[in-house]
Amino acid sequence: MAHPAVATPRAAPAALTAALTAVGALLGPRLSTATAVREQHGRDESYHAGFPPDAVAFAQSTEEVQAILRIAAEHGVPVIPFGTGTSLEGHVAALHGGICLDLSQMNQILRVSPEDLDCTVQAGVTRKQLNEHLRDTGLFFPIDPGADASLGGMTATRASGTNAVRYGTMRENVLGLTVVMADGRIIRTSRRSRKSAAGYDLTRLFVGSEGTLGVITEVSLRLHGIPQSIASAVVSFPTIAGAVNTVIETIQCGIPVARMELLDEVQVDACNRYSKLSMPVQPTLFFEFHGTEAGTAEQAQMVADLAEANGGGGFQWASSAEERTKLWEARHKAYYAALALRPGCKGWATDVCVPISRLAECILETKADLAQSNLIAAMVGHVGDGNFHLVYLIDPDNAEEVAEAGRLNDRMVMRALAMDGTCTGEHGVGYGKIDFLTAEHGDAVAVMRQIKQALDPHNLLNPGKVVRV
Amino acid sequence: MAHPAVATPRAAPAALTAALTAVGALLGPRLSTATAVREQHGRDESYHAGFPPDAVAFAQSTEEVQAILRIAAEHGVPVIPFGTGTSLEGHVAALHGGICLDLSQMNQILRVSPEDLDCTVQAGVTRKQLNEHLRDTGLFFPIDPGADASLGGMTATRASGTNAVRYGTMRENVLGLTVVMADGRIIRTSRRSRKSAAGYDLTRLFVGSEGTLGVITEVSLRLHGIPQSIASAVVSFPTIAGAVNTVIETIQCGIPVARMELLDEVQVDACNRYSKLSMPVQPTLFFEFHGTEAGTAEQAQMVADLAEANGGGGFQWASSAEERTKLWEARHKAYYAALALRPGCKGWATDVCVPISRLAECILETKADLAQSNLIAAMVGHVGDGNFHLVYLIDPDNAEEVAEAGRLNDRMVMRALAMDGTCTGEHGVGYGKIDFLTAEHGDAVAVMRQIKQALDPHNLLNPGKVVRV
Repeated sequence: MAHPAVATPRAAPAALTAALTAVGALLGPRLSTATAVREQHGRDESYHAGFPPDAVAFAQSTEEVQAILRIAAEHGVPVIPFGTGTSLEGHVAALHGGICLDLSQMNQILRVSPEDLDCTVQAGVTRKQLNEHLRDTGLFFPIDPGADASLGGMTATRASGTNAVRYGTMRENVLGLTVVMADGRIIRTSRRSRKSAAGYDLTRLFVGSEGTLGVITEVSLRLHGIPQSIASAVVSFPTIAGAVNTVIETIQCGIPVARMELLDEVQVDACNRYSKLSMPVQPTLFFEFHGTEAGTAEQAQMVADLAEANGGGGFQWASSAEERTKLWEARHKAYYAALALRPGCKGWATDVCVPISRLAECILETKADLAQSNLIAAMVGHVGDGNFHLVYLIDPDNAEEVAEAGRLNDRMVMRALAMDGTCTGEHGVGYGKIDFLTAEHGDAVAVMRQIKQALDPHNLLNPGKVVRV
Repeated sequence: MAHPAVATPRAAPAALTAALTAVGALLGPRLSTATAVREQHGRDESYHAGFPPDAVAFAQSTEEVQAILRIAAEHGVPVIPFGTGTSLEGHVAALHGGICLDLSQMNQILRVSPEDLDCTVQAGVTRKQLNEHLRDTGLFFPIDPGADASLGGMTATRASGTNAVRYGTMRENVLGLTVVMADGRIIRTSRRSRKSAAGYDLTRLFVGSEGTLGVITEVSLRLHGIPQSIASAVVSFPTIAGAVNTVIETIQCGIPVARMELLDEVQVDACNRYSKLSMPVQPTLFFEFHGTEAGTAEQAQMVADLAEANGGGGFQWASSAEERTKLWEARHKAYYAALALRPGCKGWATDVCVPISRLAECILETKADLAQSNLIAAMVGHVGDGNFHLVYLIDPDNAEEVAEAGRLNDRMVMRALAMDGTCTGEHGVGYGKIDFLTAEHGDAVAVMRQIKQALDPHNLLNPGKVVRV
């Protein structure tokens, strides 16, 4: 599928001017129309083309967001929420112009309740900022999508990452939200109890809504106790199937691994070159175990046994922080190592997720496809969830390469859908994957559209993302 | 708050007759208008008054549900989905008449995928039926709300129960749904991958929607490996605070207890009388541990240490199935033991849920309230979640007692809300708690209403429940 031909029914110039005048009166110098600021805010870290907004508004409170949304609604101007701009499917592109609402100055940690293992933060707080703040509490926030994203943005994109196999995704770790609706109403989606059966689950509706249903300004999050003991292990396999079967059996045995990552042999080769390592150039699994000392040792032994039975060799493990870091070095630097395979290239990152029973098949067919192409791509997978990523290494000025990456990507997504999987396990829809949504969800997309139209009847909130209206 | 004065704008008689004729032509003898059948389907296991539907339709397939909803939409007749009728807030009462859609004959287990630890069932399959079916797979479905409810009903009410502290609620264990919308469209809310970032989370929107947004006909569920070892423990405390602090510390230490239940001294006394036990008449915690043999022993030891530091005495534990059953006997028979405290009484069951840091306070204030009343009530709590239940033992023909239970219940709910908790942790809203929703959610109820109106514009799906339109 091609990227959408973007229609841009922008706000009428007079309406835009009136809106910007009103927002400027509210924010003063915190409203910017500088070209560099606009361009930086119109694109994310993906390959997708950027579309600069007409202005960037830096809000500092829920009430300011409310005022801006009321002005935008009055004048019919689109609003695109922005956290750190680290999304991967063009989520922040101002396809229809309008005001980018930058929430990075809403960076207050409002409450930490160690007894309840939860906290409330403003949307612009990043995950690293939160964990730094939590340092002396014995608690941590586990969701780690790689980038130091804002927690509002991670909520809006339903982020997950390496820890999801143990701790869940943002879906499981967001307890409640403060949201400003398209018409300026401020709502709280949930009280602070761990569970509730009181009404529709608005929290989960906004988690993953990518700024299209409302603007998230505060997030209450579940926290977790820092485990007494953390251990890591790495093991290589002659075949992808051996590695994936080890993963399946680990899950089936209920071994509560905290992280379980697969690197394919292309990625391992890249890491060897980049970090001057000498790992066997084979599919390789990286594990992390959280628990008591006895517990992590027991988990590691069980995994070692399963790996061995599946042909895994050279099982290495480490429990000290220093050794663990060294053991995981290849995984931590995977993205930069992949880019270094082809100096000057640009990475096109994509992801799919399938039922774990289909994972080996999906990966093998995808790699067979790649083998017949002249493009290079490296693979990393959060395999405990059935989720894997490819990074196509392309020259963005070479139209043929771009087209080829698009063709391979389309085939991979349709393959995942045919296996009852999803077009994106964690990167989200943005505008990069919007055309796959109907293939994946069929008539359910019409239901999503009804919800969008009910809550944002004038299509002003991040228009052109998730569902077209 | 009083129960709602129920307005009953029923379907016009001619429209109802036309609808029943059409449904009868479809289902033959599987459409019943017998008084006994209607009355049985108009009430649940709660104290709330029943309202019989005009007819009961026993559907056997998603396509039949579709046909019935199309007929109902055409003639403007309400439809109330029905599983096993074990809800507790009047969820199945046909407040506006109409057709009760009984799904109990949709009882096929459609698929079990041990490799993926998931399955798909028709909505009428009960949790015990599923676990019986899974017996030889090494897997189980953990959510246990007490009653042998249907999985469709458990999904619709966002059920949880004793295992939620470890395995989550229906919110975390439903992977996807087949839903028939008010106009007869059939949608699937999700593919079968463990996670997805592709579009709005319709799955979670329907989980807990109590039949008001669509009729759930198939449910895909997450399964879990039966643990290698299961152990139980029981310990009594001189004070509620000691028990609750043990719970808080257990959660904070990240000890992965599978169950953690509190019985207050009234409930313990009831259990002693009913089951001829001789437990200390004190607040008592019941634990269950799942894991490896070493793991469960380690968990039990850690909990024993915490309990002792909080004044807990007589820590007992058991790992054989027989001993475990005996140890937990009081908990298993708690409800019947409570009813036996006052022969001939009726139980009015209610629940609230608060942040765990407020749990002791909420329980103590609630018990102080009870102490000043002439009513007896027993308390059982899923305390790891901050969730507890009261059963008021009342004579339903005594208006004063009913009013007093209502007054106490209102005070308990408002107390939980003042502590940033919820009016119901797991029983749901039905019509019994509908008046508390605005107190809990404020303007968010208006957003819920917008969603209800978008998806069920003629208010035909279980009208009068969750939100009034």
